[in-house]
Amino acid sequence: MRVELINTGSELLVGRVLNTHHHWLAQQLTRMGYTLAHQQTVPDTGEAIQAAVREAIARAELVIVTGGLGPTGDDLTRQRIAELLDLPLEEHAETRARITAHFKNHNRPLRETVLVQAQVPAGATVLRNDHGTAPGLALPTPRGWLVLLPGPPRELRPMFTQAAAPLLAEKLPPENPVTTRTLKTIGVGETTVEQHITPVLSELMAEGLELGYCARAGEVDVRLTASGEGGVERIAQAEAIIREKLGPRIYGVDDEQLEEILVLQLTASGQTLAVAESCTGGLLAHRLTNVPGASTVFLAGHCTYSNAAKQTTLGVQAETLAEHGAVSEAIARQMAEGARAVHGADYALATTGIAGPDGGTAEKLVGTVFIACATAEGTDVVNACFATDRVTFKQLVVQQAMNELRLKICK
Amino acid sequence: MRVELINTGSELLVGRVLNTHHHWLAQQLTRMGYTLAHQQTVPDTGEAIQAAVREAIARAELVIVTGGLGPTGDDLTRQRIAELLDLPLEEHAETRARITAHFKNHNRPLRETVLVQAQVPAGATVLRNDHGTAPGLALPTPRGWLVLLPGPPRELRPMFTQAAAPLLAEKLPPENPVTTRTLKTIGVGETTVEQHITPVLSELMAEGLELGYCARAGEVDVRLTASGEGGVERIAQAEAIIREKLGPRIYGVDDEQLEEILVLQLTASGQTLAVAESCTGGLLAHRLTNVPGASTVFLAGHCTYSNAAKQTTLGVQAETLAEHGAVSEAIARQMAEGARAVHGADYALATTGIAGPDGGTAEKLVGTVFIACATAEGTDVVNACFATDRVTFKQLVVQQAMNELRLKICK
Repeated sequence: MRVELINTGSELLVGRVLNTHHHWLAQQLTRMGYTLAHQQTVPDTGEAIQAAVREAIARAELVIVTGGLGPTGDDLTRQRIAELLDLPLEEHAETRARITAHFKNHNRPLRETVLVQAQVPAGATVLRNDHGTAPGLALPTPRGWLVLLPGPPRELRPMFTQAAAPLLAEKLPPENPVTTRTLKTIGVGETTVEQHITPVLSELMAEGLELGYCARAGEVDVRLTASGEGGVERIAQAEAIIREKLGPRIYGVDDEQLEEILVLQLTASGQTLAVAESCTGGLLAHRLTNVPGASTVFLAGHCTYSNAAKQTTLGVQAETLAEHGAVSEAIARQMAEGARAVHGADYALATTGIAGPDGGTAEKLVGTVFIACATAEGTDVVNACFATDRVTFKQLVVQQAMNELRLKICK
Repeated sequence: MRVELINTGSELLVGRVLNTHHHWLAQQLTRMGYTLAHQQTVPDTGEAIQAAVREAIARAELVIVTGGLGPTGDDLTRQRIAELLDLPLEEHAETRARITAHFKNHNRPLRETVLVQAQVPAGATVLRNDHGTAPGLALPTPRGWLVLLPGPPRELRPMFTQAAAPLLAEKLPPENPVTTRTLKTIGVGETTVEQHITPVLSELMAEGLELGYCARAGEVDVRLTASGEGGVERIAQAEAIIREKLGPRIYGVDDEQLEEILVLQLTASGQTLAVAESCTGGLLAHRLTNVPGASTVFLAGHCTYSNAAKQTTLGVQAETLAEHGAVSEAIARQMAEGARAVHGADYALATTGIAGPDGGTAEKLVGTVFIACATAEGTDVVNACFATDRVTFKQLVVQQAMNELRLKICK
């Protein structure tokens, strides 16, 4: 069964907007047992949309199209696809009523133009939009199904989960489910990971196990894929072998994030965390607080950008600042210990470094960072240098800081 | 001139990784005057890569391919494209020397397999990789050029800017530059924006001005595009008309971010900012500190998740917490005023709300938020409700908080 995704939107092609639909839908499809074979982005012109859909439905059983269902003049998907499939547009009474009610509930005047969204191709299954006005549509094609979803993520995501996924599971069940598992490693290079793994997996690979590597900031993902009979067992065997080789360098699987692992572990042990950030500027706190339930273990974060703030709120010593400078092992230590003491936390992490592009010196280059982890047993400080852009620097430091704590609390 | 982008990588198709290359390269190409006509993602198989490149080079003058140039077994781009173009692979001595030196400088043992990256198709222009081992490649095609870039963003980005862009500007100068300008609005719906704008721009649209809308969390982008003679003037006229209609709802243009506008304005006026975050959990500080130079105006951020932290570090009153609860106008006010006082800042922003999924009550629903902006003249608090997922909630609140300050300081 071939599955394809078409994202419409000139804003994607001029680089105004990041294509998060592709990422999110690919995750959902993979979880359901489908494998996305192709994704493409086409501009908001009727011809481009029609050409892409025409070719895709001729070769794929499932084609998903995003965007272009809204009320404005550049929303052409609904009409052009009705043309392509030679289906008349008909008013869908329930959708019209829903749109009318939506505007009434939001105390906004109803403009006639928005009712174009209640026009649906004859024979389409309407996918209700509970978070906006444009409905989604599912249409049978000669090979399978064509599913149209609205562009705004907060409308597309619940609609896919609640309406499109159940419909697909019923009408187009995945035939030969592919099993995928990703082992996420940190602190080791791509080539090293491959050199450790490939020789010991040759037998399983001969039986159909597929291996993929993906290097990201400070991390390497190892993706295991197998299909058909025995696939699940092959992946389990491969995972055991890889874990034997890589040990604690593997921090999680699939979509697990370091922050989730930390919040889960701290919740389980009934312990708490505080953070003090200089160079990471709030990103560490942001990552931790993205996790639902973080509030039970995460007490507080300090983003002490100025020296004065380091002294006022964390008790960092003026003499230490004068002697060692703000970017130093001694200050990282005082920040972590200060945060731990102020909030009575079991653990505290602190970061201080030079994110750049300015602020480097001959002695302390841009990218220099000190990361401290304070516990009841004492405080460890690691020093690293990430010579990269400002935003990547913050990500790398936060990732390493969370990993330092993980290595202490996850045994 | 037709420009296409091919992203290789099964990790993109299974949803393991977000395609940031598409976004970034589209921005660069747009700035250079090229218009990306098509983007596609194909799996890491030799056939898929060859088929996509074969079709793309037959219809486009410029084809850019990302990924698959590394040293591991699933890196097939270099070899399969050499096959497709019928070019032998030859060792590139300079690249071999650079890779060898790279491993030596990083004190890592050189494995023979990494030297496959020094094999380049005959006649290729090598694009030097200053941040990794795999070089990029530029190859002439019957219609124009094929450019291959490595997958890791920190290698791809500087290579494109320093090596690929200058080569393209020389070999394939954009023929009929398209001018694009995006006006970024906040706090108004997509239909309303269109209803205000379209009637007054009909004349310019008849002359070739194109309008596009893109709704994102709390914002609507209005994209103006024009090509050929008079395009720049048409866009300038359209912008003046739209600004007249939408006034301060327009907060920026093109890639400008609210945080950049705030840091720029505060720097210009020599003023300072502190923030106190509860429900946004560090995201506000993170966004502000992403801006180079933020340290001159951003004094400190507090991420006071617990009530105790609100009292200890911001001076929030226990009685107020008891009487109104942590999510209230009174607490938002005390948080902002506390942050402003503790750090002696000119301005302070504070957020307190219920990010969910848990924590809501019949009186205070999940999504409820209070945003305070404290200045020398007093403190304003706004109340809103964003019923959405946790991460989107944080984004919406941060965006509105920054906009509250913008409306005060940018006249």
